[in-house]
Amino acid sequence: NKRAQIIDGKKIAAQLRKEVKESVTLLKATHGVAPGLAVVIVGDRQDSAQYVRMKRRAATEAGFHSVDVALPESSTEAEVLDAVARLNTDSKVHGILVQLPLPSHMNEGRVLAAISVDKDADGFAALNVGKLCLRGGEEPSAVACTPVGCLELLERSNVVIAGKRAVVVGRSNIVGMPVAALLQAKDATVTVVHSKTKNISKIVREADIVVAAVGQAQFVKGSWLKPGAVVVDVGTNFIPDASRKSGRRLVGDVDFASASRVASKITPVPGGVGPMTIASLLKNTLRLAEAAVSRDNKPLTRVSS
Amino acid sequence: NKRAQIIDGKKIAAQLRKEVKESVTLLKATHGVAPGLAVVIVGDRQDSAQYVRMKRRAATEAGFHSVDVALPESSTEAEVLDAVARLNTDSKVHGILVQLPLPSHMNEGRVLAAISVDKDADGFAALNVGKLCLRGGEEPSAVACTPVGCLELLERSNVVIAGKRAVVVGRSNIVGMPVAALLQAKDATVTVVHSKTKNISKIVREADIVVAAVGQAQFVKGSWLKPGAVVVDVGTNFIPDASRKSGRRLVGDVDFASASRVASKITPVPGGVGPMTIASLLKNTLRLAEAAVSRDNKPLTRVSS
Ligand SMILES: NC(=O)C1=CN([C@@H]2O[C@H](COP(=O)(O)OP(=O)(O)OC[C@H]3O[C@@H](n4cnc5c(N)ncnc54)[C@H](OP(=O)(O)O)[C@@H]3O)[C@@H](O)[C@H]2O)C=CC1
Ligand SMILES: NC(=O)C1=CN([C@@H]2O[C@H](COP(=O)(O)OP(=O)(O)OC[C@H]3O[C@@H](n4cnc5c(N)ncnc54)[C@H](OP(=O)(O)O)[C@@H]3O)[C@@H](O)[C@H]2O)C=CC1
Repeated sequence: NKRAQIIDGKKIAAQLRKEVKESVTLLKATHGVAPGLAVVIVGDRQDSAQYVRMKRRAATEAGFHSVDVALPESSTEAEVLDAVARLNTDSKVHGILVQLPLPSHMNEGRVLAAISVDKDADGFAALNVGKLCLRGGEEPSAVACTPVGCLELLERSNVVIAGKRAVVVGRSNIVGMPVAALLQAKDATVTVVHSKTKNISKIVREADIVVAAVGQAQFVKGSWLKPGAVVVDVGTNFIPDASRKSGRRLVGDVDFASASRVASKITPVPGGVGPMTIASLLKNTLRLAEAAVSRDNKPLTRVSS
Repeated sequence: NKRAQIIDGKKIAAQLRKEVKESVTLLKATHGVAPGLAVVIVGDRQDSAQYVRMKRRAATEAGFHSVDVALPESSTEAEVLDAVARLNTDSKVHGILVQLPLPSHMNEGRVLAAISVDKDADGFAALNVGKLCLRGGEEPSAVACTPVGCLELLERSNVVIAGKRAVVVGRSNIVGMPVAALLQAKDATVTVVHSKTKNISKIVREADIVVAAVGQAQFVKGSWLKPGAVVVDVGTNFIPDASRKSGRRLVGDVDFASASRVASKITPVPGGVGPMTIASLLKNTLRLAEAAVSRDNKPLTRVSS
């Protein structure tokens, strides 16, 4: 009974962060600019606060300029919009991330739409999504971090994507849909399944590459997989586990125990996609900073050309 | 040997145009506004000229204000951009269409990008594509006409889309990609196949709904279809036909003779998707005009509420 090779997200993310750090050093040396990442957090959800701490630490380690805006739960939408507007005009900030979810008394879509497209570190702007889905036009300034992380995992594990069948389980704006667009751009033949899909297990069995982003603990079973399939598990779900002090355990959207006996390669949870998301955020912000530098230098280039 | 029911695009398009005309009458009566459609044509390609004539006739018949801008083949890109800029600020024009292809000495992407998103009658703007692909956010101001036409054909033929498997053959920006997004938004489970896909016939056989937009004459064969599948043929290809005076004949991307023996419903070529494209263009422009009217009326509404 062969076991799948584990795709080590921690290791790949560390490598990616190292590459980003090197580019930051170069950007500082050549242009005197450090990529600036601003994180806006509203309220004091534990999970959000922890995630923001991790982002800040990773940004600082990579040599970024890091800005934190923490607003109380009781803030008005106008106050959050104000904070975003200030960051939009702050020339030291190249990427802005508003930590979701926002308190329920504000409109997330409106707040996200207020972020300048040039500083859309999360790649959530409709304009960027359009550019992602269109072939052959302008590149988006950024693409959603978790999907980009999934593709990095595949490519850095030497998984061939072109010509393969990929099934994406889930079609959310922040994971499933952009993952599907990225896989298709890499010439996979992509099927997207969702809550209205019948016979999901049969469709998953057609796939050479399965990306699970469904938000249901251990949803995809080993018995659904084509032998040798590559599995990327985006899920982060807690299930009860009496053997743990916390009483719970983090699991993915894939049933790892059974899937790892059928797949050829698989990402674990934790330690798979999770670490890639922050690494991709840094890379996105680096790119935005590089784009800002090249915009600033453009008039000069034009005159001299 | 049962034959597929023919989906009559001419009849459905006529019905759609009639509905548009009724809405135009209403818009004129209540707001004194006729939807304005501007078509920009550069050069004198025969096919483009004929298509533009058909658009103009349909627009006039539906009660539209119709503007034609015909520029010589020798025009510069700057002249075309100028024409678009003038139409952008013309309050009588609600939809602008630049007939493609443009002469090779100009950049199509740049010209299309110059059209105001509010007047993007073809739904080609990246912002509109992004809104199409994102779930639950703002509606796009328009969606590409041929894809919208395909969906109208399915819905007006009472084809159930939700929960069905759909295969889209082709992934172009103007047909395949937006058709796939529309089908997925209607809760189909969509697979997009393209030139890098292996085993296309096997994938097509999984589909309850097949949309062929591949640009290859009679590409999809009856033997590829699941019995009872619904087939939408977007293709417009000419093949040699000695029995015709013109020496050629228009055929689709589906081999109609064999497919119509396996499918339950099928669109013919000509008389299927073709007539729907212009009807959808009129509907798009009507919607843009309605949106412009409601934007113009907004301050008033705000003050009085
Ligand atoms: N590791 C990381 O950094 C990140 C991890 N995540 C994790 O990834 C997972 C997905 O996140 P997200 O995309 O935001 O989740 P959403 O809840 O936004 O989307 C879930 C998707 O799965 C589909 N779905 C839900 N239930 C079923 C079902 N029973 N059968 C088939 N499809 C179903 C939904 O379909 P429909 O559209 O029809 O409702 C929807 O498209 C979660 O576990 C989340 O915690 C998310 C972001 C980052
Ligand atoms: N009735 C109407 O109003 C309209 C009709 N049309 C017609 O629709 C058809 C498609 O148009 P359009 O989308 O613009 O065409 P494009 O040439 O832009 O796109 C064709 C698509 O088909 C794919 N493809 C090409 N050859 C193969 C093959 N052998 N196997 C699998 N996939 C293949 C291409 O794949 P890849 O991406 O990998 O290159 C591409 O995605 C044409 O016949 C066109 O005339 C178009 C617009 C309007």
